[in-house]
Amino acid sequence: MKNILILGGDGYLGWPTAMHFSARGYNVTVVDNNFRRNMNNSPEVGSLYSVPSLNDRARIWYEKTNYEIKVKICDLTNPESMRSFFKGDIAYDWANSYEYNGKPDVVIHYAEQPSAPYSMMDYKTSNFTISNNLIVTNNLMYAVRDHSIDTHIIKLGTMGEYGTPNIDIEEGWIDIEHKGRKDTFLFPRQAGSIYHTTKIMDTDLLWFGVRMWGLKVTDLMQGPVYGVETPEIDNDENLRTIFNYDEIFGTVINRFITQAVMGYPLTIYGKGGQTRGYLNINDTLQCIMIAALNPPKKTELRIFNQIVETLSVRDIAEKVIIAGKEIGLDIKLKSIDNPRIEQESHYYNPTHQGLADLGVKPNYFTNDVITKMLKVVSKYKDNINQKLFFKGIRW
Amino acid sequence: MKNILILGGDGYLGWPTAMHFSARGYNVTVVDNNFRRNMNNSPEVGSLYSVPSLNDRARIWYEKTNYEIKVKICDLTNPESMRSFFKGDIAYDWANSYEYNGKPDVVIHYAEQPSAPYSMMDYKTSNFTISNNLIVTNNLMYAVRDHSIDTHIIKLGTMGEYGTPNIDIEEGWIDIEHKGRKDTFLFPRQAGSIYHTTKIMDTDLLWFGVRMWGLKVTDLMQGPVYGVETPEIDNDENLRTIFNYDEIFGTVINRFITQAVMGYPLTIYGKGGQTRGYLNINDTLQCIMIAALNPPKKTELRIFNQIVETLSVRDIAEKVIIAGKEIGLDIKLKSIDNPRIEQESHYYNPTHQGLADLGVKPNYFTNDVITKMLKVVSKYKDNINQKLFFKGIRW
Repeated sequence: MKNILILGGDGYLGWPTAMHFSARGYNVTVVDNNFRRNMNNSPEVGSLYSVPSLNDRARIWYEKTNYEIKVKICDLTNPESMRSFFKGDIAYDWANSYEYNGKPDVVIHYAEQPSAPYSMMDYKTSNFTISNNLIVTNNLMYAVRDHSIDTHIIKLGTMGEYGTPNIDIEEGWIDIEHKGRKDTFLFPRQAGSIYHTTKIMDTDLLWFGVRMWGLKVTDLMQGPVYGVETPEIDNDENLRTIFNYDEIFGTVINRFITQAVMGYPLTIYGKGGQTRGYLNINDTLQCIMIAALNPPKKTELRIFNQIVETLSVRDIAEKVIIAGKEIGLDIKLKSIDNPRIEQESHYYNPTHQGLADLGVKPNYFTNDVITKMLKVVSKYKDNINQKLFFKGIRW
Repeated sequence: MKNILILGGDGYLGWPTAMHFSARGYNVTVVDNNFRRNMNNSPEVGSLYSVPSLNDRARIWYEKTNYEIKVKICDLTNPESMRSFFKGDIAYDWANSYEYNGKPDVVIHYAEQPSAPYSMMDYKTSNFTISNNLIVTNNLMYAVRDHSIDTHIIKLGTMGEYGTPNIDIEEGWIDIEHKGRKDTFLFPRQAGSIYHTTKIMDTDLLWFGVRMWGLKVTDLMQGPVYGVETPEIDNDENLRTIFNYDEIFGTVINRFITQAVMGYPLTIYGKGGQTRGYLNINDTLQCIMIAALNPPKKTELRIFNQIVETLSVRDIAEKVIIAGKEIGLDIKLKSIDNPRIEQESHYYNPTHQGLADLGVKPNYFTNDVITKMLKVVSKYKDNINQKLFFKGIRW
């Protein structure tokens, strides 16, 4: 493993992943269409601080570490752009001062519209989510098939693909015995937003590519990620990753932490029994690295449930309240009418053993972790616009 | 039930469906983007005869029957075009001499790129299939949600969504008991082409719309359809439906009949044990009408397996050979290397009871039916280009 290509390398997870691989000596190329960055300029989106352009971040990273991250800004729904990264010619793109690495050994695919509320705003954002996410994935499959069949595709899926079934959630697959006969199938999927539904469709597509063409794919069913710091980010404040606290792009824990810092009540939708699997941003990095170092067999769609613990929304709020008290924050909890259609209390028991078996050491959502997050976010208190905490996008 | 909107009304099934409803006094509007018609001008596509434009066919139909079919040519991937049909205002579009009917009681959605081989030609046709099929379906869901929530959506799916599992195929749903707990899920789906995979994704989308917004949907898992004649087509030769015999758009039985007429060996891929459910075009019309007259409940995704019998490719070839002999045709069978990745002999036992319970009277693939088809196709023998029977699009 030498060349790592990261699609969506400017995002909340993409940029920390790029630095994580780069710091370990891999040749990293990041590609992004600036979608998330442009959305941060919308009046409805709140980010805790602004971050330098992707090119500038790569330059700063190089100055600090002497490791180079190659940057290309382009739209991967254009198949020719996607294919250029897999042809393997070392070429130099003068207009963009960009030199291609060789064929990627691993491609990490984050290049999707990642927000459930964004996908539910109206038919335009819904269409954008569907066509962006599926066409990028399809372009990736065909590029690997046609030009670089040995490249290991690591795709970020979501635990939300499974929804909240009344049976235990297995890692991607289930054996079904029916009327005396047996077969193995993808675990049933039914998602709670158009965004999450595009992730089901991604899995449909990749499973097709694996069966038909022998692609080598790891599909990571990830839970919501939280956290602001990674060892690489700690090098320089200009290396921070995008951090959103608004309803549209803020993940729930990051949003609660920011609300807590502002003395704004932690907003729970309905009963707050909505239970999901969560993980720390540092565990995302661990999981991706371990998946990359342990590729699946050819013709295998390997699926891991990438979470370290399950928590209800109410659990999260209560933990934040307790941790906040220790550092003098008086945090309230407020239940409001649920703008979404979802079960507010339900059975939830997902297996998540595969990545642990490969050596992932989980970081839990502890008091220490929470107080540390509260302190980091507090530094940027002046940047926070409370009006963005709640918009009430209805499902 | 009064107003019927048919999306993809110029296609092999769309046009006969339009006449079938019109002949029974319903207000029928047909919409099409001319994709299939334009494809018929491609040198790789063979059609048995040319058909008048959709507007001309509607005019001829009116002259013969005094029933009006309204025609609109537009691209339904444009959400505004789609939404215009559900707003319910009787409006007159002068540029197109088009008067809108009121809100549709039933919308029949055929407006998809329908060919598996086309979807597998290259990354461009694959992308087109994905974005056309999903964006049209998504636009339809949002248009119904926003403007006409009582409209019954009848969607053409395909038996190909299920693939060829080693367990009995139920009608859309399966009860799963797992580790002592139970739930009901969409029957597992894994398709054999990108086209069929878009149909899985359509089901994912519609199931979302049903659960979240209370849409009323019938999803018909249809097998390959065959046949040239319906009672309405028999009125006038200018009312015939598009009939393709080429590898890309010709369905297997229509293709075999045409090969037989030309004394070309019936081309079987590999062992020929590939088994699927089939139905006559007249049964498609029966099924659609019965589904329309018996709408599902709101918030129900009702799924029927729309087939009347299962046949292997070899079964079909042998039946055609026997029927051909009766009218003096000496037909050979030829097995060639399978250009596709698929199981050539497998378990296949799909349930298909739902539509029968509602009163569908099946037409089977009998000797009589086959000889009649052979005679009809023989009339157009001079139009057939044998080179188009086989192209060998590889999977």
